Amino acid sequence: MLGGSAVHFSLAASFFTEARVVGPVGDDFGDDELAVLEGRGVVTDDIERIEGGRTFFWQGHYEYDMNVAHTDDTQLNVFAEFDPKLSQGAREAEMLMLGNIQPDLQRRVRSECAGAEFAALDSMNLWIENERDSLVAAIAETDCVLLNDAEVRMLTGEPNLARAARALMAMGPKVVVAKRGEYGAALFTEEDFFAIPGFLLENVRDPTGAGDSFAGGFMGYLDSRRAAGDSPLGGEVLRQAMAHGTVLASFNVEDFGTSRVSALTMDEIENRLAAFKQMAAF
Amino acid sequence: MLGGSAVHFSLAASFFTEARVVGPVGDDFGDDELAVLEGRGVVTDDIERIEGGRTFFWQGHYEYDMNVAHTDDTQLNVFAEFDPKLSQGAREAEMLMLGNIQPDLQRRVRSECAGAEFAALDSMNLWIENERDSLVAAIAETDCVLLNDAEVRMLTGEPNLARAARALMAMGPKVVVAKRGEYGAALFTEEDFFAIPGFLLENVRDPTGAGDSFAGGFMGYLDSRRAAGDSPLGGEVLRQAMAHGTVLASFNVEDFGTSRVSALTMDEIENRLAAFKQMAAF
Repeated sequence: MLGGSAVHFSLAASFFTEARVVGPVGDDFGDDELAVLEGRGVVTDDIERIEGGRTFFWQGHYEYDMNVAHTDDTQLNVFAEFDPKLSQGAREAEMLMLGNIQPDLQRRVRSECAGAEFAALDSMNLWIENERDSLVAAIAETDCVLLNDAEVRMLTGEPNLARAARALMAMGPKVVVAKRGEYGAALFTEEDFFAIPGFLLENVRDPTGAGDSFAGGFMGYLDSRRAAGDSPLGGEVLRQAMAHGTVLASFNVEDFGTSRVSALTMDEIENRLAAFKQMAAF
Repeated sequence: MLGGSAVHFSLAASFFTEARVVGPVGDDFGDDELAVLEGRGVVTDDIERIEGGRTFFWQGHYEYDMNVAHTDDTQLNVFAEFDPKLSQGAREAEMLMLGNIQPDLQRRVRSECAGAEFAALDSMNLWIENERDSLVAAIAETDCVLLNDAEVRMLTGEPNLARAARALMAMGPKVVVAKRGEYGAALFTEEDFFAIPGFLLENVRDPTGAGDSFAGGFMGYLDSRRAAGDSPLGGEVLRQAMAHGTVLASFNVEDFGTSRVSALTMDEIENRLAAFKQMAAF
């Protein structure tokens, strides 16, 4: 079914800002898939269709404890030869999310979007282990890193999350967001630290993409505040962005693939945000 | 070194109420160990010294990710033949914490403290797997269960924590607290659910006993509110108890054994509580 980091991210961000996706797809990515994105107003001009190609494919399963995911099959397909080509509109982005991909590609896209006021980056264990120097160089050119907490530890070689986040900030970014699965997320800046729990849900069907929906809600909300004149580096703005990311992730997991988020309304988001604030207040 | 559930629990609780410990020790438990408890005002009348016996002993180690603990050695020693004998003072307890032990012993102590207004229970995988019926009977006689989240899932056979907590409440208790290690804790009652993150610390030396210090801070604070006339089942009271438990656990892990908590001051607790509220506010 339809999924993937860019899809989950852009759908979540679309509730707060205009989102634009850059990436390749194959012949198997048809009108139905495009319609999911366009139905939420996501700009798809930079989706490149590779003739005769097949779209990136991932298959996995979760343990009884759904915090533990296992990959069964990864087919890079059109991603194997991906050469990002940005339209003028994409180059003029004010906020930039560099999805999890080979870090030299992230750097190239970053340099093509030199005017972006705020750039964030995701990555994974594969690049931390095999392309560490490139990844560290990419991180140095961003304002914010969003990683799983285990990845923050692995990248810095520091088992303590707070110290690991500080080591990561020393590489350049002013903001570190450590995603913690169902347990929530933590945010670190030079002068602040913040932890937020996950939303407690009775109905969890599929955690796939939750981290990307979190990032999309986080970045989309940040962009809405930036557009309203606030600095995306402000402590209160970042905390509200963390809450919005958590809420979008909580919807993501309620159904398979993009079903829940693509059919979501702003009313539902606002109601859950209010319930979440009540759930976490003390 | 000195440790164990009752020790960590009673030291943490001692900041908010008069705590009393019931349990056996051996000849190796000397004046220095007693002094740690008595130095915090813990009533030690019900500590039973077994002539020629040795105190319960546990040794373990933690992985790089300190959320993962491994037991290297457990020696039951005087616990193997433990037969709880409660003094009149212990029988008159208004709040009761049934530490992790064979559930039929928990039931007997519960029945001897029939006047306790609020009884809580801890347990572990050993009893869930081998003494499930006794454990369920013990749970039915308590107001509150404090378990690790994995234990809540295991006991109920329900992988979703919120649904597992509801299944656990159906066994009798009105309050379920699921401890989540460094990630914090979640609380469930019939009409409320609440999640709280852990306190983000740069200095974590030894997580041993953190869950017991959490429970001690939680129960001790609840008792102080009960003594002031509040119901220990009140939503706001329980939330503040969760915050106090988290703060005590955060001190516990800053040093080995009981070093940090036994030397703690109320000023430090209040300062950290304020910092914690700031850390988690959004």
